Amino acid sequence: MPVNLSTPVAAQLLPVAGVSLGIAEAGIKYPDRKDLLVIRLDEGTTVAGVFTTNRFCAAPVTLAREHLAASKGIRALVVNTGNANAGTGEQGMNAARTTCAELAKLLGCAPEQVLPYSTGVIMEPLPVGKIVAGMPHAIADLKADNWFDAAHAIMTTDIVAKAVSRQVQIGGKTVTVTGMSKGSGMIHPNMATMLGYIATDAAIPQPLLQQMVSEAANRSFNCITVDGDTSTNDALMLIATGRSGAVIDAASRVAMQAVITEVATLLAQAIVRDGEGATKFITIQVEGGKDETECKMIGYAIAHSPLVKTAFFASDPNLGRILAAIGYAGVTDLDVDVLKLYLDDVLVAESGGRAASYREEDGQRVMQQNDITVRVVLNRGAVNATLWTCDFSYDYVKINASYRS
Amino acid sequence: MPVNLSTPVAAQLLPVAGVSLGIAEAGIKYPDRKDLLVIRLDEGTTVAGVFTTNRFCAAPVTLAREHLAASKGIRALVVNTGNANAGTGEQGMNAARTTCAELAKLLGCAPEQVLPYSTGVIMEPLPVGKIVAGMPHAIADLKADNWFDAAHAIMTTDIVAKAVSRQVQIGGKTVTVTGMSKGSGMIHPNMATMLGYIATDAAIPQPLLQQMVSEAANRSFNCITVDGDTSTNDALMLIATGRSGAVIDAASRVAMQAVITEVATLLAQAIVRDGEGATKFITIQVEGGKDETECKMIGYAIAHSPLVKTAFFASDPNLGRILAAIGYAGVTDLDVDVLKLYLDDVLVAESGGRAASYREEDGQRVMQQNDITVRVVLNRGAVNATLWTCDFSYDYVKINASYRS
Repeated sequence: MPVNLSTPVAAQLLPVAGVSLGIAEAGIKYPDRKDLLVIRLDEGTTVAGVFTTNRFCAAPVTLAREHLAASKGIRALVVNTGNANAGTGEQGMNAARTTCAELAKLLGCAPEQVLPYSTGVIMEPLPVGKIVAGMPHAIADLKADNWFDAAHAIMTTDIVAKAVSRQVQIGGKTVTVTGMSKGSGMIHPNMATMLGYIATDAAIPQPLLQQMVSEAANRSFNCITVDGDTSTNDALMLIATGRSGAVIDAASRVAMQAVITEVATLLAQAIVRDGEGATKFITIQVEGGKDETECKMIGYAIAHSPLVKTAFFASDPNLGRILAAIGYAGVTDLDVDVLKLYLDDVLVAESGGRAASYREEDGQRVMQQNDITVRVVLNRGAVNATLWTCDFSYDYVKINASYRS
Repeated sequence: MPVNLSTPVAAQLLPVAGVSLGIAEAGIKYPDRKDLLVIRLDEGTTVAGVFTTNRFCAAPVTLAREHLAASKGIRALVVNTGNANAGTGEQGMNAARTTCAELAKLLGCAPEQVLPYSTGVIMEPLPVGKIVAGMPHAIADLKADNWFDAAHAIMTTDIVAKAVSRQVQIGGKTVTVTGMSKGSGMIHPNMATMLGYIATDAAIPQPLLQQMVSEAANRSFNCITVDGDTSTNDALMLIATGRSGAVIDAASRVAMQAVITEVATLLAQAIVRDGEGATKFITIQVEGGKDETECKMIGYAIAHSPLVKTAFFASDPNLGRILAAIGYAGVTDLDVDVLKLYLDDVLVAESGGRAASYREEDGQRVMQQNDITVRVVLNRGAVNATLWTCDFSYDYVKINASYRS
């Protein structure tokens, strides 16, 4: 069950002027399931995104990059679940092109003004006919106050929907930022994650928007992992309609970036809290490193270790496994005698071994919580990094040994 | 249960002249369990080894390196289970020194002529008193024909003991090679693995012996992974007593290396077949790469992916997960349109997607086997690499959520 995460309250999800959302049951993989989402954008909206670095990236990822580069102004996004359209070769590219062309016809825009997204099983042909047949239903459903249903329509193995809104005052205008994300397994984003969409009614010019979405991704989606598997379909999109009247410039950029990063971080953390089989949410803070690379190497070694993750699942303070992970992380000149390991506020290890003050019952007490912080103080520099992950349970195996069938 | 692996037949494990082994129940962690092994070597024996690259390497690893460097001639090895003496700081170094000094006293040699090894829980103090008290019992048990019991004495979460013998004719002499290993979890050796010992009665000079053990490790223990966790205590030792009368030189080196590598490979594969919770043994062949590094990057990405491993556990040909792992392996200029993926002899993917000839029932048939080969043909060079791994089951989680308690 999701760790300290509940379904968003529909009334707290604020519409973003210039953005309308419509959903449909297209029957892509299962009947009677909301599996198609169309997002329509007002003219003049800017859109930027970051995508997976997986070399087997999905056809819709390739096409979305192509359409963004065409710079004709994006008027719609279309998302299907139930099929990733990845590892589908030329046939998959054709299916993605057909999806965009058919939606463009219905909305009266050019195919290059539509961005496609898919999530689900890899290496199966996309049933593009079902998607096209579902489009009129999604369009009939288009409305601004539809984020709650939209967040549900993009779920796959997710247990709860993930969406959040924030508001900020900029230049005397109230700016709204609303975002949603999906993802639960195959989560180790590298550039972005499994489908995140954030929209604002501020006006943000294209080059700045791209910088802001990259910055937000680096501090949020690029700092989470569930199982270390980088998806073929990761995408994080940032949409700016300008309808609030607030225009983001050098002066207001910091305040705007802060709220976008906050929304992205909450959405990214929600994915980990709803990680497949998760029973614990673990924050890993690596402090006092020489650079961000080594802090992240150590953080991810801990976060990806099946032995560390199963110990958290068992609430067993078998914390030597964390030392082992720090040791094999690949920081070849690491001096293990000067680092310190804390579990929340409990000093666990120093001087190359267990701290004299450490008592098993203190470790046990922290391990029984469902929100835990692992803090590694390297004492070799001034750089810090924070990652978020979850534990590894029977249910992870169960979900992934039966997902497809 | 171990995959196509049974307990060695005691009568097939050949003594190596110049090597005697004795075991004892020292009560290190549990009562009534063989947990202490002493290996005594005749004078003139050469010994070489490779050890973990984990920065949190165990005290006995540090001390074994120190004693090998002292070059006084090794006369004994001592191995305990139940405690890894890793992450134990200065106290751990003292405990390892005491172990060597006390055994040296009993055997009439110098402490620097003893090599110590420990395996078990990390970050708990080594009960050195129990080990010292057990030594006289192990010494009383010393005999050449004792490899079967010795292989049992070094087990931890292993289900079956791992040992094998081979003979080869060199210069008219019969040369025997007998080896044993232990390990089941925290298996992703990097330089060597969790305790492997191979002895031969050939005479092999020290510098050549070191080259031969490195070569054998690179083709065997360094090509396996169970969970991607590199242990703090990995060690592979090669012992040459010279008692067969065969002297290894440049001419006979190739034949000798072949049999040592064969024994090392069988022992390494046995660790994977007995991997924690394993139900499948998976060979990953990556062919046609530019260099070994990229072949291993792709092989390990597949071998470490929890999604791939759980699909094997389920016998579910959800093979898009393998494509995803190939794609995120980190080979940034990989052209996915020219590679081919095979499952045993079944062509699964080519031209960036599912092969036209692929039929689900063929994939299903191979997935139901318990020995499976994944073959990735990169078509970008002439280098190949082979790795071995196992699947990821409920029992892996069960074993590691309860190992310590």
